[in-house]
Amino acid sequence: MITGIGASPGIAIGKAFVLPNWEWEVPEQRIDVADFAREFERVYEGIRTSKHEIQQIRDELCEVVGREESHIFDAHIAILDDPVFMNEIQGIIQRQYKAAEVAVKEAIDHFVTMFDLLDDDYMKERALDIKDVGNRLLKHLLGVPEIKLPSDTQPFILIAKELSPSQLVNTNSDHVLGIVTLAGSTTSHTSIMARALGIPLVVGVEAALKEPITTGQSLIINGTDGAVYIEPDQDTISFYRQLQQRQSDDKRRLQHLVNTPSITPDGKALRLDANISSLKELDIALAGGAAGVGLFRTEFLYMDRNRFPKEEEQLAVYRSVAEKLGGENLVIRTLDIGGDKHLDYFQHPEEDNPFMGYRAIRISLDRKDLFKTQLRAILRASAYGNIKLMYPLITSVDEVRAANEVLAEAKSELDAEGLDYDRDVEVGIMIEVPAAVMIADLLACEVDFFSIGTNDLVQFTLAVDRMNEEISHLYEPFHPALLRMLKLTVDAAKAQGIRVGVCGELAGDMRALPLWLSLDVDGLSMSAHSILPMKERVLLTERKACSGIGEKLQRCRTSRELIAELQIFMDKLDEKTANG
Amino acid sequence: MITGIGASPGIAIGKAFVLPNWEWEVPEQRIDVADFAREFERVYEGIRTSKHEIQQIRDELCEVVGREESHIFDAHIAILDDPVFMNEIQGIIQRQYKAAEVAVKEAIDHFVTMFDLLDDDYMKERALDIKDVGNRLLKHLLGVPEIKLPSDTQPFILIAKELSPSQLVNTNSDHVLGIVTLAGSTTSHTSIMARALGIPLVVGVEAALKEPITTGQSLIINGTDGAVYIEPDQDTISFYRQLQQRQSDDKRRLQHLVNTPSITPDGKALRLDANISSLKELDIALAGGAAGVGLFRTEFLYMDRNRFPKEEEQLAVYRSVAEKLGGENLVIRTLDIGGDKHLDYFQHPEEDNPFMGYRAIRISLDRKDLFKTQLRAILRASAYGNIKLMYPLITSVDEVRAANEVLAEAKSELDAEGLDYDRDVEVGIMIEVPAAVMIADLLACEVDFFSIGTNDLVQFTLAVDRMNEEISHLYEPFHPALLRMLKLTVDAAKAQGIRVGVCGELAGDMRALPLWLSLDVDGLSMSAHSILPMKERVLLTERKACSGIGEKLQRCRTSRELIAELQIFMDKLDEKTANG
Repeated sequence: MITGIGASPGIAIGKAFVLPNWEWEVPEQRIDVADFAREFERVYEGIRTSKHEIQQIRDELCEVVGREESHIFDAHIAILDDPVFMNEIQGIIQRQYKAAEVAVKEAIDHFVTMFDLLDDDYMKERALDIKDVGNRLLKHLLGVPEIKLPSDTQPFILIAKELSPSQLVNTNSDHVLGIVTLAGSTTSHTSIMARALGIPLVVGVEAALKEPITTGQSLIINGTDGAVYIEPDQDTISFYRQLQQRQSDDKRRLQHLVNTPSITPDGKALRLDANISSLKELDIALAGGAAGVGLFRTEFLYMDRNRFPKEEEQLAVYRSVAEKLGGENLVIRTLDIGGDKHLDYFQHPEEDNPFMGYRAIRISLDRKDLFKTQLRAILRASAYGNIKLMYPLITSVDEVRAANEVLAEAKSELDAEGLDYDRDVEVGIMIEVPAAVMIADLLACEVDFFSIGTNDLVQFTLAVDRMNEEISHLYEPFHPALLRMLKLTVDAAKAQGIRVGVCGELAGDMRALPLWLSLDVDGLSMSAHSILPMKERVLLTERKACSGIGEKLQRCRTSRELIAELQIFMDKLDEKTANG
Repeated sequence: MITGIGASPGIAIGKAFVLPNWEWEVPEQRIDVADFAREFERVYEGIRTSKHEIQQIRDELCEVVGREESHIFDAHIAILDDPVFMNEIQGIIQRQYKAAEVAVKEAIDHFVTMFDLLDDDYMKERALDIKDVGNRLLKHLLGVPEIKLPSDTQPFILIAKELSPSQLVNTNSDHVLGIVTLAGSTTSHTSIMARALGIPLVVGVEAALKEPITTGQSLIINGTDGAVYIEPDQDTISFYRQLQQRQSDDKRRLQHLVNTPSITPDGKALRLDANISSLKELDIALAGGAAGVGLFRTEFLYMDRNRFPKEEEQLAVYRSVAEKLGGENLVIRTLDIGGDKHLDYFQHPEEDNPFMGYRAIRISLDRKDLFKTQLRAILRASAYGNIKLMYPLITSVDEVRAANEVLAEAKSELDAEGLDYDRDVEVGIMIEVPAAVMIADLLACEVDFFSIGTNDLVQFTLAVDRMNEEISHLYEPFHPALLRMLKLTVDAAKAQGIRVGVCGELAGDMRALPLWLSLDVDGLSMSAHSILPMKERVLLTERKACSGIGEKLQRCRTSRELIAELQIFMDKLDEKTANG
């Protein structure tokens, strides 16, 4: 047994299939001046085909994972469109009388070497992109077929040195039980996508591996803890088969709770809503037991296109989601781009610290034309369901008022045009910046509800970028400071009589449930896959049993103490449940 | 009169001198294969000379501005060391039989065009660097003399299209009264340096300028508000001469307060200390009326060198500062690198949001070897003065305890080695992350004092990078959220009976004085140039007059209200002073 890094949970048991290396021989060919035009045309044709192919991959992926994961392929398209890349290739053809495929290969090598030499991680990433795209172009020029995974064998566990996101998309078949890569990290795009696709993945096994895994070897991988068994004995196989069985039993058991309301044994209703980014994800969320949608991230509507979506286009999506939900909750968050989410057709400034930059409501208030179009679409959709509006990244009373002014304008316009909308549409804000917590009492007077976004709130409160692997040990949602911020926010909301929910990652963390019940929040919004396990827990946890834990937690001096207190509480509760 | 952007305050009155364009004719010369070696050697020689020159500029600048401003020149040196740059030049010489200067010129054009084409701001900046360095190299190859500013004329106001930091350093003579550039922004390196050097600077006048300014024209510039008068009439000249006179009178009047203690009329002593980064800055601070040093930024000791400073090297500096201060306060902050401060000889990770990354105490606790060396040096220096230790970027009780463990180790080592140090050396922390504010009561039990770092605290609290021009209107220190954080922190310190001071930019902001007096902080630490104006104000402001303003401020809902309240209070106070 060796241990890698668990990057996408789940158990896979099967035979290994080792992905062949994606490199081709490029025969040296000299050409004539008379051939220049033909070779240029071959390059252009190859670029066209490659672009088309990448666009297709992107669009398919977008359907499946339904989010910005598919977005990275736009960087690949941009390389093919870059005149510098084309100039280099043409230069080699003309100056050195070389055929298109040779020129492409040399151009790739040139750029990769150059960017690698610059000794800059940003550049090294660009080098990888160029390599990936260049190989695709080369493949077309050489006329070699796409490397296909076998489909006439038993399903297998795929082994690769590294797997690019495009390769992962290609492997999304019934034939891949799980994946192991020698390199990689849990935060890579490939890992994020594997989780989205539900494929067990273990990465970074290179150091632990004494000799290479070969095709046909028997394997067990556990994407939760990163364990990889090579040629496991029968006992291990039985153990993991049982574990696999238990996991699928759990899944089936939870399935019965899909339509059960989320209420504690002592009658506290704790709404469990889903975070979604598309109509497609709504299906998954409803199948996963969500009561409604606590957070509709509208960024998705703006991505993977070449201009801002028109009012009617947005309306169609918002309306479909609202209608599908019937009278259930649909909280639509206005555009939250910037930070790590960029649009191709919008000039985002180059920023040193984009998370603390030009993003979200800041862009909306700066580009009121775009903002008003979105507000009009949301308002008009509100005629077809129970829609609530939410502004992201609010830091001041001024921002809420400015946003509401645009909303009022949008309403007057619709009135003037005789277009229907819900006149009492509720307006809420994300509480995800420390400033908003500190003035939660003031903000509560301006809005109908709060939704606490724990991801950003933890980041800013601790000054820790959660994507930064170097300091990932410091990203600690169970930090006493955060606990106090949560209490401040909830207390301010209660004092003003407005609703307050939570929609960050912490909302779906089972360990935090006693905390939410002690704070008495109104609802939690989370990924679809967290809802049923959480609902099962809610059905077993008395609210009044949690009332004591709140004060205890507030007295904790460190994250460790806090997590320990929660654990002790949960253990006691489990014991009681087992005995009762 | 036209209006640009005031980038460095002060008034200059004089004749214009327009900086000639820094471009040379490069004659086309063909060479022979036999000349290759000679031309290569010419390039190498030019690179050597250029590097030497840049190093000199960097070192001189470092002396004058005493900080990381000089650091940007290292990027220029790195370009000259880049093999890709050299390969391109050699390639042109060999393939196209061109002389060294022609090859250099073409290589510069090639890279600049290429980087410009990439349509990426990061790349465009690199293009500018390459252009700047390339021109310097070209200058040496062409054997043309450095463009010198006239020194046989009257002092003048320098006019330039744009001014690179290296050009600014060259102009730092008694002959330059002020500078106007057509392009530029207040946050550019050139602007930062002009402020450090005390040269009035107006930037970005291009759009306002109807016809170019010519050498010899009479000018008045006001670096505070960005006004530029071309051929002003006699009245305007008299007006600005008077203003200039008044500014210098103010300066003289304040000079009398250098040795006056900072005490309010009703007897509250409010320490005014200086923030410094070097021994050289200590002289300026003491001449500027500082009582002691509230923040010694030790990063400077680690910059502009090629390895970590040894214990003895650090000791020498800390000891000199301590001795020069006599028994006065010297708060030494441990290393605060990372974020935007990088060391050449330390592998900083590439980070998306470096302000929320691997920096400050996080690096120290990760690299305990480096940390202990610094702690040993500070401890040993404590035998020679009144030294206090301070940890930056603290977010948890755990971090303080972990740092204190290393401190305890350092002490035991010194004990074992029989080396002297102050056994009661006080330990404090920066309160500059929202988490630290929220758990200030817990942190107060672990340390001897707090120093509130408002710059970072405002950034994280508002999620606004203060260097980001796109959202600079949102960087608002007078935000109700910050006010409440200040109160939380000070109250927690007072409850535990520890000292609390402020050392961010807000500490030196005159408008904030009533706030500090109402909160009853123990001291302020600020740039040397802010101390005397602040001291004058302290001597006039009764503490008890400020006690009422605190509650009023806490009730403000917006920054605008807050600033207005402070302004009303100040106006009333001024009136009373004028009448009394």
